[in-house]
Amino acid sequence: DPNLKVFSLNSNLPLAREIAKVIGVELGKSSVTRFSDGEIQINIEESIRGCDVYVIQSTSSPVNENIMELLIMIDALKRASAKTINIVMPYYGYARQDRKARAREPITAKLVANLLETAGATRVICLDLHAPQIQGFFEIPTDHLMGVPILADYFIKREFNGDIVIVSPDHGGVTRARKLAERLKAPIAIIDKRRPRPNVAEVMNIVGNIEGKIAILIDDIIDTAGTITLAANALVENGAKEVYACCTHPVLSGPAMDRIQNSKIKELVITNSIAMPEEKKTDKIIQLSVAPLMGEAIIRVHEEQSVSTLFD
Amino acid sequence: DPNLKVFSLNSNLPLAREIAKVIGVELGKSSVTRFSDGEIQINIEESIRGCDVYVIQSTSSPVNENIMELLIMIDALKRASAKTINIVMPYYGYARQDRKARAREPITAKLVANLLETAGATRVICLDLHAPQIQGFFEIPTDHLMGVPILADYFIKREFNGDIVIVSPDHGGVTRARKLAERLKAPIAIIDKRRPRPNVAEVMNIVGNIEGKIAILIDDIIDTAGTITLAANALVENGAKEVYACCTHPVLSGPAMDRIQNSKIKELVITNSIAMPEEKKTDKIIQLSVAPLMGEAIIRVHEEQSVSTLFD
Ligand SMILES: Nc1ncnc2c1ncn2[C@@H]1O[C@H](COP(=O)(O)O)[C@@H](O)[C@H]1O
Ligand SMILES: Nc1ncnc2c1ncn2[C@@H]1O[C@H](COP(=O)(O)O)[C@@H](O)[C@H]1O
Repeated sequence: DPNLKVFSLNSNLPLAREIAKVIGVELGKSSVTRFSDGEIQINIEESIRGCDVYVIQSTSSPVNENIMELLIMIDALKRASAKTINIVMPYYGYARQDRKARAREPITAKLVANLLETAGATRVICLDLHAPQIQGFFEIPTDHLMGVPILADYFIKREFNGDIVIVSPDHGGVTRARKLAERLKAPIAIIDKRRPRPNVAEVMNIVGNIEGKIAILIDDIIDTAGTITLAANALVENGAKEVYACCTHPVLSGPAMDRIQNSKIKELVITNSIAMPEEKKTDKIIQLSVAPLMGEAIIRVHEEQSVSTLFD
Repeated sequence: DPNLKVFSLNSNLPLAREIAKVIGVELGKSSVTRFSDGEIQINIEESIRGCDVYVIQSTSSPVNENIMELLIMIDALKRASAKTINIVMPYYGYARQDRKARAREPITAKLVANLLETAGATRVICLDLHAPQIQGFFEIPTDHLMGVPILADYFIKREFNGDIVIVSPDHGGVTRARKLAERLKAPIAIIDKRRPRPNVAEVMNIVGNIEGKIAILIDDIIDTAGTITLAANALVENGAKEVYACCTHPVLSGPAMDRIQNSKIKELVITNSIAMPEEKKTDKIIQLSVAPLMGEAIIRVHEEQSVSTLFD
């Protein structure tokens, strides 16, 4: 369909190339560069008049640069008479700032939604939002894809020799752990962190039976990897045979790589929702692609078919 | 007035401190830091409920960081029940992207105006916008301050010994040159750049009499300093006795400092609308403060008096 155009910005070009291949199109021609003072300069180098345009951008680090790049691109597409402007965000930056945790804090996840709409986005396609409520921050249609089936497929194919248990590193992640457990036909366990008294170290209490089992920790985002590596070590200390960890969004900032390397985690399974620089890759890390999922979602949205059937 | 609160973000803290002193208030307490992954974390640390809040931020380099900082701060202020949110932008980033110069380009100066309004700004106070039309990009009230009187005062006090001529480095800047010339009671000249044929070097033609005179070049922004230094050298070659240059906004990116240092410019007079790092300062550079102007403007806006009388 000549009216379907897919553009990539600069945050995750390898994924965008894969997605374009899945759909069977070439990436649209655009130049996204910088002026001498660091201001973003965008020019769309082919006509997109009357087209359904899909823009692929993860608002991962450097998050503010990537958000501004996206907003300016949307403005350029709108002024170039695109029919629809569909934002494909494999990773949604600022998703953790989704509520006022303290007085006089911003709700930046909502601000970002407003900014995208103001710039001219007509639809947003997301993957594993930190909170599903973020969909409600938008007035425009959103599609919310799930990474769990991709992670589940990997562990099913791996054919572990022994009993598996899926572990949520905190109470907030139990629903996600349940979804993975259902697909792997395994039970779940939960790490219950408690601080017995103020200024005393947290105690890692494990709810559920993990002894002698292969434990698979799951989270949506792994950022500094503090929670997940402490959880892994607690699991081993409490008798787990082996510990694996997985997540959709490998933010992996600051001390994350060192912590993972020095932890009891045997293997960390992640997706390419956030691009991973070559120098960060280690033997412990297995990267799965979300391109087939996101490509198929774009095709279905474009053909006005249901996206939820993708997860059946 | 306890209902007047002035906050500063991170782009130009020295100027914000000076402005607060002019007004006679303490800067509001807020923390603007980063999470490990680079996301901005803002907390306003005093009640601003029902207050008229002024936020000082130049959206200079790093422009995208500074814009996002500003937008997130506005969101936090709005949710903390500020009565009015007045943005004081001594420098307006992306002001040069104020029209479609080519097909399928964004108009980022307009996008930024929309983003500020969407976040919740209720008024904007600007200084020497690259194009006065940018005021029309806003639906909310704007105040547009002028830097020319500050530059003029400096040159008047300097009491040059000889005839002065004010020079515009291009046709776009003639109005600005006229304003400075009126205050200095001097004539104007214009540099008329022409490319005789394609792929042939530009010729600098000077319209007006500069021979034996003290030439003062004026521009709104000096960015890479290519235009201004070529103009200065052309003036000397064509018989100017001495060349000075001045501008409101010292962007000074890339090769700017080297070019100025190696040029025929005797002195570059700038303002502190953009913070200048210590290591960039040289003997050639004179920095004037816009704090008295901006502070007075804030007081007048808060007291609902006219700001335009500031320039009489
Ligand atoms: N980029 C970030 N890095 C670390 N923590 C964050 C970030 N953004 C927001 N937060 C905090 O993370 C908490 C949200 O965590 P959660 O309970 O997992 O939703 C909130 O208290 C936020 O203040
Ligand atoms: N940050 C920037 N640095 C250099 N040039 C820019 C920048 N932003 C916009 N421009 C270009 O500068 C031109 C505007 O210059 P002017 O004629 O002085 O208004 C336009 O052609 C823009 O494409």
